[in-house]
Amino acid sequence: MDYLNTLGQNAVKAKYELQKLTTAEKNKALCAVSSALTASGERILRANQKDYELAKQNGMAEALLDRLRLTPERIEAMAQGLGQVAKLEDPVGEVMESFDRPNGLHIDKVRVPMGVIGMIYEARPNVTADAFGLCFKAGNAVILKGGRDAFFSNMEITEIIRETLVREHIPADALQLITDNDRAVITAFMQLKQYVDVLIPRGGAGLIRAVVENSTIPVIETGTGNCHIYIDEDADIEKAIPIIINAKTQRIGVCNACESLLVHEKIAERILPALGKALGEKNVEMRGDRKVRELIPQAVEATMEDYGTEYLDYIISMKTVSSVEEAIGHINQYNTKHSDAIITENEEHAARFLQGVDSACVYVNASTRFTDGFEFGFGAEIGISTQKLHARGPMGLRELTAYKYLIRGNGQIRA
Amino acid sequence: MDYLNTLGQNAVKAKYELQKLTTAEKNKALCAVSSALTASGERILRANQKDYELAKQNGMAEALLDRLRLTPERIEAMAQGLGQVAKLEDPVGEVMESFDRPNGLHIDKVRVPMGVIGMIYEARPNVTADAFGLCFKAGNAVILKGGRDAFFSNMEITEIIRETLVREHIPADALQLITDNDRAVITAFMQLKQYVDVLIPRGGAGLIRAVVENSTIPVIETGTGNCHIYIDEDADIEKAIPIIINAKTQRIGVCNACESLLVHEKIAERILPALGKALGEKNVEMRGDRKVRELIPQAVEATMEDYGTEYLDYIISMKTVSSVEEAIGHINQYNTKHSDAIITENEEHAARFLQGVDSACVYVNASTRFTDGFEFGFGAEIGISTQKLHARGPMGLRELTAYKYLIRGNGQIRA
Repeated sequence: MDYLNTLGQNAVKAKYELQKLTTAEKNKALCAVSSALTASGERILRANQKDYELAKQNGMAEALLDRLRLTPERIEAMAQGLGQVAKLEDPVGEVMESFDRPNGLHIDKVRVPMGVIGMIYEARPNVTADAFGLCFKAGNAVILKGGRDAFFSNMEITEIIRETLVREHIPADALQLITDNDRAVITAFMQLKQYVDVLIPRGGAGLIRAVVENSTIPVIETGTGNCHIYIDEDADIEKAIPIIINAKTQRIGVCNACESLLVHEKIAERILPALGKALGEKNVEMRGDRKVRELIPQAVEATMEDYGTEYLDYIISMKTVSSVEEAIGHINQYNTKHSDAIITENEEHAARFLQGVDSACVYVNASTRFTDGFEFGFGAEIGISTQKLHARGPMGLRELTAYKYLIRGNGQIRA
Repeated sequence: MDYLNTLGQNAVKAKYELQKLTTAEKNKALCAVSSALTASGERILRANQKDYELAKQNGMAEALLDRLRLTPERIEAMAQGLGQVAKLEDPVGEVMESFDRPNGLHIDKVRVPMGVIGMIYEARPNVTADAFGLCFKAGNAVILKGGRDAFFSNMEITEIIRETLVREHIPADALQLITDNDRAVITAFMQLKQYVDVLIPRGGAGLIRAVVENSTIPVIETGTGNCHIYIDEDADIEKAIPIIINAKTQRIGVCNACESLLVHEKIAERILPALGKALGEKNVEMRGDRKVRELIPQAVEATMEDYGTEYLDYIISMKTVSSVEEAIGHINQYNTKHSDAIITENEEHAARFLQGVDSACVYVNASTRFTDGFEFGFGAEIGISTQKLHARGPMGLRELTAYKYLIRGNGQIRA
């Protein structure tokens, strides 16, 4: 794949230049790109119109068409996003640790850019600008492979960013877009290990599985969220119901939405009728075990498969349990290591849940919907990691960096 | 692969128990295992004798036979190693960061065990006890696949450790050994993603490549080291020669040994004759460019392939360059992102080198041989990472952990 090798080599050349940029230079470029996107609204809308019409002709569903659609407001939001990234603290250069060895060696552990970041994503064309902004601010070159449906939009946005970078005397190859939609090219991209330091897939479970199975580049898995809420026997019902309604229905199609509910059998009679009513009013289909169905007449039977399903829809699975330990055991078996919550006023139960549940984010008395880079105060988010290696949970600028050790001596040799 | 699935399920069950252990409980178990290894010296030696004789019959080379061989002293060193790990600070539970959000959520970022660690390694049977000790202290269950040549030794060491754990009321499955040497089993192990959180290969370049290409589990690449030393025009020759001799010859077959030398052309005439003599006295074969060969008559011609070769032998490649930038460019093209050094008295050249060279460890005026967990003061080492993701350079206990976010609220929902 000569084409991909060239892309890889270009990215590596660019990364060494990007690593030398000062924070001020990076911020100036981000603001220039932000302005250029605003000024090029018409160009972007024309390109997006082409994608939209093609997608419509091909019978794309309404919800997906809406994700694909750019409007002047969405372009402005994209431009402003880059302006906000410019305002974030630059993680590069931070001295994370500093220590002296008995032999006189002085060692600094310093935060550095990751190098070249690859991203494969679906649908939304605004990811093109967002991903560039975050990767660039953290000093990285980025190679993007966007969804085939947003082809013209992604091309146009990329072109505007690259033109602006050139005007700012920054290598255009800080951002490259793979324009080939051939499956073999995408698989070859996943094996561009020689040039790409990390590959981040953003999209549905199918995309993420394909990347994990085919990539030789280190991958950060993102996104899949089969999130649980456990209503402890010592839960405050006044807190529990609003949290569950929020986590399940505030936004349906997102990875931090609640998909499954566990209820301690001692509180089931007190909470389930009211909860069933509240969920019913939001048109949520409930699938539960026998006890749940006794207390919520409209609930249907849950299968074992339900407990492992991320619905991303107005459906919730429900199960009664007889202890915190049973809840923890169930969650660790079925969750996707994303976000899980306990509702309880019992400190000791909370502590056991926090310790025992194996998830990126474990909550006490709050909605799982807070698992988000902005809500965590990171100012930005490239995705939510559901793996253990490198980064876990919301990933901001810092998670797009690596480190290196700088060791200063005066002639030390090893004995 | 039912057998591997069982191993995976056992490890997951064990990991939840290990995560609950206190530091004192872990240390007590480590000391018990240390004593058990000392007390079982005869058992281990008998098993090792079987491996040794089989290997000898199969014509194993002397150097490899020596790596395979256990002696009472080596068993004692192994046992003492575990005692030392017991003394190291427990990384688990460390609150890495703590912050409050405007909505009242309190977020703690807490260090937790990785979970289940897989390791594939070659030759040396002592790795079995070392790897167990480090993974266990960091709260992880471990599944090991040792070299086929150390089969009986690894079996015996594993058995002794598991017996001791049971006596300490700790799940024996904290340590499991894959005893099947079938290639298909090893490949299936690399895809046990459902149960294993990270896979660490330790061994030659071939093993590491096979793991990177076949694993669906996140991998930490370790080991390969094509390490460079650049002698700047402003180098102190009195420092340069001892550092180079140390980095090249103090121990030949290790990843942090120097394999390639770059020399600024302005200092070449002053240093190369003496350096050639010193390397010659150590029986190091020198392969250089034209200028090097003019100044060191016994040097032979270097090919481009030489510059990319990790010799692990009494051979060094040598090249003259005309600037720090040329040295950095050459190193970034040929190194393995492990360890590289500049010898200079010029602060500004040092700064450019430290910034520009893309390696886990970048040195000024010291031997690359210091890239080592013990030399860095980590008290232990599971390997040297040469990738960017998660850990870079020497990996100690901390690098065998992940983190999770614990979020405490009092009913917060997302607006």
